[in-house]
Amino acid sequence: MSQTELGAPTPKRGRPGYDREQVLAVAVKVFNEHGYDATSVADLTAALGLTKSALYHHFDSKSAILELALNDALDGLEQVVDDAEARHPLASDRLRAIVRGAVHVLIAKLPSVTLLLRVRGNSEVETTALRRRRDFDQRVTAILAEAQSEGLIRDDVDAAVATRLIFGMINSVVEWYRPGGPVDPDELGEDILRVTLDGLQSR
Amino acid sequence: MSQTELGAPTPKRGRPGYDREQVLAVAVKVFNEHGYDATSVADLTAALGLTKSALYHHFDSKSAILELALNDALDGLEQVVDDAEARHPLASDRLRAIVRGAVHVLIAKLPSVTLLLRVRGNSEVETTALRRRRDFDQRVTAILAEAQSEGLIRDDVDAAVATRLIFGMINSVVEWYRPGGPVDPDELGEDILRVTLDGLQSR
Repeated sequence: MSQTELGAPTPKRGRPGYDREQVLAVAVKVFNEHGYDATSVADLTAALGLTKSALYHHFDSKSAILELALNDALDGLEQVVDDAEARHPLASDRLRAIVRGAVHVLIAKLPSVTLLLRVRGNSEVETTALRRRRDFDQRVTAILAEAQSEGLIRDDVDAAVATRLIFGMINSVVEWYRPGGPVDPDELGEDILRVTLDGLQSR
Repeated sequence: MSQTELGAPTPKRGRPGYDREQVLAVAVKVFNEHGYDATSVADLTAALGLTKSALYHHFDSKSAILELALNDALDGLEQVVDDAEARHPLASDRLRAIVRGAVHVLIAKLPSVTLLLRVRGNSEVETTALRRRRDFDQRVTAILAEAQSEGLIRDDVDAAVATRLIFGMINSVVEWYRPGGPVDPDELGEDILRVTLDGLQSR
């Protein structure tokens, strides 16, 4: 759909009482099920039981919904690195805090992180999100490299590859984790630390 | 598109000389780029520069191409477990051989493994592939549990969760690995073993 089509809301921005957060949650669910590009505004209004003008009351465009969801996921992940940097002088401690925190954000914001992981850069909103993901990766890679120079993290694995592998494992959780299922969310973060930092082999 | 439409090749099954393997490779590339469901036979013939009847010369249907590609990936992965079981009496050795072998198969068969990882069960071919993936996961989980009972793999992580996490890391490689890029394919398997089994933390 064209931006222009969506960007021209009529004065009648109907149906107050439908919560903006709820509209966002339903839209992100539909995006994740059908793919963002394949989802039309008609698909969204059908899923929401809203008219187009009622949808425009909350958001100016489909792309504005995407942007909000991606920012929500990215803000959460960046906050984890900010917090780790503020709290832990040792880089290896920052790394542990980041793994734990990223798993926490992934589970707390599962739909928006899932959407973020599927972004391929087909629009300016998406390329901006990809750039923020790259910056995030680079910050974590720098912390991992610093932990290697501290001597607390082995240095026979390239820091950028190690970061990709750790986040590959963390992100893969969106493929199978279901809220309320048998896997405890707090335990999952500890399990990922046990596997990636401590190693599965008995010491 | 309907199966029936594709399943009724005309007698004129033209253009010999176009290699079946090449047709398969191009089709899998198109499936990975646009999604299997979104790809029409017209998309395939356009990408191949073939007529429909020439395509039918090689394959009876779009779904037959998908099936062949998924079987290729699954056969490779299952062979890794078969080989590990034949060669290594210790479960922890089998686990190492499986991680190394699975990374090798993923890189050697990158397009068909990528396709396999995106299958969501929208047809019988896909549900069969998902069942084989589940059986594979269960075999690896049983080996990991046996390695825990040997005392060589830590038992404070659930075997099924550990298997999912390790394969989450292995499978995430399809998102960024590019043949001929800076990351050495043999080294990558060793890196994944260093991270998951030995652990990144210096011992």
